[in-house]
Amino acid sequence: MLQISTRGKQMPASPIRKLVPFAETAKKKGITVYHLNIGQPDIETPQQVLDAVRHSNFKVLEYSHSAGNESYRKKLVQYYSSVGIHVNHNQIIVTTGGSEAILFGFMACLDAGDEVIIPEPFYANYNGFAVSAGVKVVPITSHIENGFALPPIEEFEKKITAKTKAIVICNPNNPTGYNYSEAEMNQLKNIILKHNLYLFSDEAYREFTYQSKQYSAMHLTGVDDNVIIMDTISKRYSACGGRIGAFVTKNQQVLDAAMKFAQARLSPPSFAQIAGEAAVDLPANYFDVTKTEYQNRRDLIVKRLNEMEGVFCPNPGGAFYAMAKLPIDDSDKFCQWLLEDFSYNNQTVMLAPATGFYGTEGLGKQEVRLAYVLNTEAINNAMNCLQEALKQYPGRK
Amino acid sequence: MLQISTRGKQMPASPIRKLVPFAETAKKKGITVYHLNIGQPDIETPQQVLDAVRHSNFKVLEYSHSAGNESYRKKLVQYYSSVGIHVNHNQIIVTTGGSEAILFGFMACLDAGDEVIIPEPFYANYNGFAVSAGVKVVPITSHIENGFALPPIEEFEKKITAKTKAIVICNPNNPTGYNYSEAEMNQLKNIILKHNLYLFSDEAYREFTYQSKQYSAMHLTGVDDNVIIMDTISKRYSACGGRIGAFVTKNQQVLDAAMKFAQARLSPPSFAQIAGEAAVDLPANYFDVTKTEYQNRRDLIVKRLNEMEGVFCPNPGGAFYAMAKLPIDDSDKFCQWLLEDFSYNNQTVMLAPATGFYGTEGLGKQEVRLAYVLNTEAINNAMNCLQEALKQYPGRK
Repeated sequence: MLQISTRGKQMPASPIRKLVPFAETAKKKGITVYHLNIGQPDIETPQQVLDAVRHSNFKVLEYSHSAGNESYRKKLVQYYSSVGIHVNHNQIIVTTGGSEAILFGFMACLDAGDEVIIPEPFYANYNGFAVSAGVKVVPITSHIENGFALPPIEEFEKKITAKTKAIVICNPNNPTGYNYSEAEMNQLKNIILKHNLYLFSDEAYREFTYQSKQYSAMHLTGVDDNVIIMDTISKRYSACGGRIGAFVTKNQQVLDAAMKFAQARLSPPSFAQIAGEAAVDLPANYFDVTKTEYQNRRDLIVKRLNEMEGVFCPNPGGAFYAMAKLPIDDSDKFCQWLLEDFSYNNQTVMLAPATGFYGTEGLGKQEVRLAYVLNTEAINNAMNCLQEALKQYPGRK
Repeated sequence: MLQISTRGKQMPASPIRKLVPFAETAKKKGITVYHLNIGQPDIETPQQVLDAVRHSNFKVLEYSHSAGNESYRKKLVQYYSSVGIHVNHNQIIVTTGGSEAILFGFMACLDAGDEVIIPEPFYANYNGFAVSAGVKVVPITSHIENGFALPPIEEFEKKITAKTKAIVICNPNNPTGYNYSEAEMNQLKNIILKHNLYLFSDEAYREFTYQSKQYSAMHLTGVDDNVIIMDTISKRYSACGGRIGAFVTKNQQVLDAAMKFAQARLSPPSFAQIAGEAAVDLPANYFDVTKTEYQNRRDLIVKRLNEMEGVFCPNPGGAFYAMAKLPIDDSDKFCQWLLEDFSYNNQTVMLAPATGFYGTEGLGKQEVRLAYVLNTEAINNAMNCLQEALKQYPGRK
């Protein structure tokens, strides 16, 4: 009997996508489903970004350089400089989405059996890349009560072993929206220097911060060899389908190793590199407009949530996610029930159960993640549904 | 001191791309370099394939389904049916190039320490995916004397151990151009059934066959659970930069496992899926025209090579590669010498040393791979260079 691999068995199914069949059934019944479950923004991709591809006039859709087009990498140098990150184009490998940047980092720096520490709740797909690389994820719990701030550094110390090779952060954070402070980043700096660790910093949401600017891992000094940034155009320009990201480090050995993985898969997608290159030339106020829109949505969703009895939602400082604690028995059951057994004015809402974002078994059962990727009218309707659902839900606590 | 991973150290650098700096230096000296070293065709991507992307009118560049757009997968069902492969759209996962299809196959079916048997010389990047997955490649040597036909099945038997989980073939073959016969495919069928192995069949060059049609692994009967096809639009439609491929199998367990890896990386590139979908609607004679062009090039390059003293080039039945045995001491040295120390009428030729395609140390030192991806005039000029170079080369044997 043919068997799939142990790694194929261990590979987690997407916790966000497992509810999709229930949403499809609801839609077939004629129910409007508000998708707050997934980070697919409704913001239009900037016209000039799409036009750059549509007006392109090459004759052969060729492989690009394995590290990405040099012209694009040089543009990215400008972009990074504009956010206070100073690198040259040879320190950038253009990847197939931020996803591939994470995979390259794990593959180039970590061996099977190595450990990475990640504050939980965390982006669930880190688990998938860890399984691919045979790496063990060691979670450190952050808490909703203080808005998911960086756990005390002593908690990191407790978990570091001889096998620990890296700390992974997402900043601003998906799923919590937490924006790490300069002081917290310096705490991380001290610990990676003390224990000789890599810091993998997923900065997909860099521009989406509402109180204070992002403090990048590359703003830290004295840790050039430790820091690797995993980046993407997906959220920044609402260009998720482009599948263009970046792997950025000043560590030459790591770059050399990552380049070999990049060469094996030949090149990143050519069409979307054109889009990414055009995006760097967007007018300076592009993010202001987008950010104002997200901030309005955030303010609304946080207000609506905290007005509901028994609900607590800390105010997220960045990204476009909010985590809320609900008076429920089990977030997986609740999210399924919302799709399967509930509707209000023929509408319902799809949320992501927080259990999928925790590495520690049993955590997140009363929490959900809400992606505020819909306009304020849709968010209001979705919150009306949630408010009513919490009244009706049989597993209310 | 921070260390990269052992896997990062083991990862092979691209044997084809390592000569690139020497080619760049030659070009800076004003020398024309004919690139027969890499499978980047000069054939124009069909206008209607590029136009499908350029005339697209969506507003948000969204994630697609992790398995690829359903509309594209349904189109692919039509395409596969046209080549005698009968699958439904749920048996297809659209991948980021054929590269990702290979990675998914290795990840979903093989564990670290498992062995895969591959007839050598083979596509060098299989080594990279094997290192990524911690899998050991066990080569079985095929020989230039019989045009790189499938090695006798007893050779496979000798190499099969308890750890052997799969055989990988590329059909028609890169780098040899060999097109496996129905009889050979049935020999493989018998051995995978006898030893309970997967057959990973890389069919990137399906349409490019010159004597007899390709016999696909999916034309075999009774091995539905064993066979996985790794496919790509790259060569078929001269769309290498699209990074769109396909993972095709009837084995539901393998599909389920591969889907989890597909979900972790979210989705394949959206722009090029539009291109791929349009490509299925190309006129029926599209491949005839392209194939005639490649066949003319093949006939020319094989003739020119065999006319050179001491050179032997078997007539390849498919793909757009020819392997030639040259009267030289060392193909790596020779290919570098061509770029560094040689020119003829201010021109030279870039070839791929065959050493990079062999898993067995020491093989391929007198062989090179030539990709006939340039027009016949360029091929003639390149062959003039090679002919002259073989006269001048100090390491001639």
